[in-house]
Amino acid sequence: MAEAYYMQLTRQLREQLRYGGATWVDEVGRLPAERVLAERFNTTRVTLRQALAQLEGEGKIHRSNRRGWFVSPKRLEYDPTRDAGFNDYVTAQGRTPRTEVLGVTTATCPAAASALGLDVNHPLYHIRRRRYVDERAVLVESLWVVPEQAPGLLQERFDHSLWGLLRERWQLELSHRSIRMVSEALQQDDASELGVATGTAGLNISRTIFDTRHRPIEYDEEHWLHDALSIRVELSNTT
Amino acid sequence: MAEAYYMQLTRQLREQLRYGGATWVDEVGRLPAERVLAERFNTTRVTLRQALAQLEGEGKIHRSNRRGWFVSPKRLEYDPTRDAGFNDYVTAQGRTPRTEVLGVTTATCPAAASALGLDVNHPLYHIRRRRYVDERAVLVESLWVVPEQAPGLLQERFDHSLWGLLRERWQLELSHRSIRMVSEALQQDDASELGVATGTAGLNISRTIFDTRHRPIEYDEEHWLHDALSIRVELSNTT
Repeated sequence: MAEAYYMQLTRQLREQLRYGGATWVDEVGRLPAERVLAERFNTTRVTLRQALAQLEGEGKIHRSNRRGWFVSPKRLEYDPTRDAGFNDYVTAQGRTPRTEVLGVTTATCPAAASALGLDVNHPLYHIRRRRYVDERAVLVESLWVVPEQAPGLLQERFDHSLWGLLRERWQLELSHRSIRMVSEALQQDDASELGVATGTAGLNISRTIFDTRHRPIEYDEEHWLHDALSIRVELSNTT
Repeated sequence: MAEAYYMQLTRQLREQLRYGGATWVDEVGRLPAERVLAERFNTTRVTLRQALAQLEGEGKIHRSNRRGWFVSPKRLEYDPTRDAGFNDYVTAQGRTPRTEVLGVTTATCPAAASALGLDVNHPLYHIRRRRYVDERAVLVESLWVVPEQAPGLLQERFDHSLWGLLRERWQLELSHRSIRMVSEALQQDDASELGVATGTAGLNISRTIFDTRHRPIEYDEEHWLHDALSIRVELSNTT
């Protein structure tokens, strides 16, 4: 099968972005207007847009509301087998984390309650946060905590590690974690809080946490911009 | 912010699919024609299509070439921290695996060679396979093996576990695995081998394998249909 022309153009743009030949990117990582870029590569805007959409799908570039196309920052690496919190692993990679609390309430959530093995109507503490890496909003998350295990939790501040708080203030020993990761299309609320269009590709990471006495403690669900994260697991054994 | 009407419709369709109220799905999991479905839910085809696109993004339904919309099978679960091969973990989940060898050759691959710490022009054995679950093609993969470690490998059959083969026939003891997972948009060749449109959402899993003597053995890269897989990690510790 003959390769479509836009795939040749995609490869050319990708290689220039990777190996630093992309003199057409400005100092803040912004791409020129599509018209200018199409002229530079001697192609049509239709073909150029196909190539840009492909690179967007690969996580190499992203669209910023009304400000055009930008080169995506290096992906953050996350190792689900380690216990490092967001602030720790972002900082360890030389990046700057920030957490914004969007809401704190008590509510019911059938999905969270089922995951924790509780009745679907069991009230749960609900904390909603948006998290940034180098001031780019990369994820929104909902945390659901079993109130009986951490009474008074909602009076605390949530801009740092929730698990750290549960360990220090309530002496909870988090032990069993069940972690699930699937790709998704971001739904309206999550997309809007991340400043992207509904349906943009995302990565959904959920965790269900029990303590050393097998009591359900917390369920959380993160919605990441798909190009912001790479999951990496390093394993060693001697077979 | 008022919820868009298509999101209400999406929720209605999603709940009927999940809780078995979807009498509009036929016995092989096919949805009715869009015109029929739009009439049934008393909506326009434009709104219906927005809702279907959203459910496609969530991995609940998928489009099959010229045959319309289908309910997606349950996701396969993959735990990267375990050593189970594809045939084993598919079978353990009550599903039927099949592997098709698409090509066997010796070639260079700068990305694979770099991952293995070799010169980018180092020739590598290259095996390309397509894998099925219950006769649905769910992934295509490229495997790159260092020829010095498994001379004569290309004479073998590759419809079973490559690692099993390397262990049994060449006594290689695979030890360190570095696994990376990112979401992607499927590129032309991979998409075409999976029978979906270029740019369809995918999940990219790559592994770099060294043996107990720290020699590079193998690099592989899998391209999955995004709705076919859920990554699940279970961890326990006593803090």
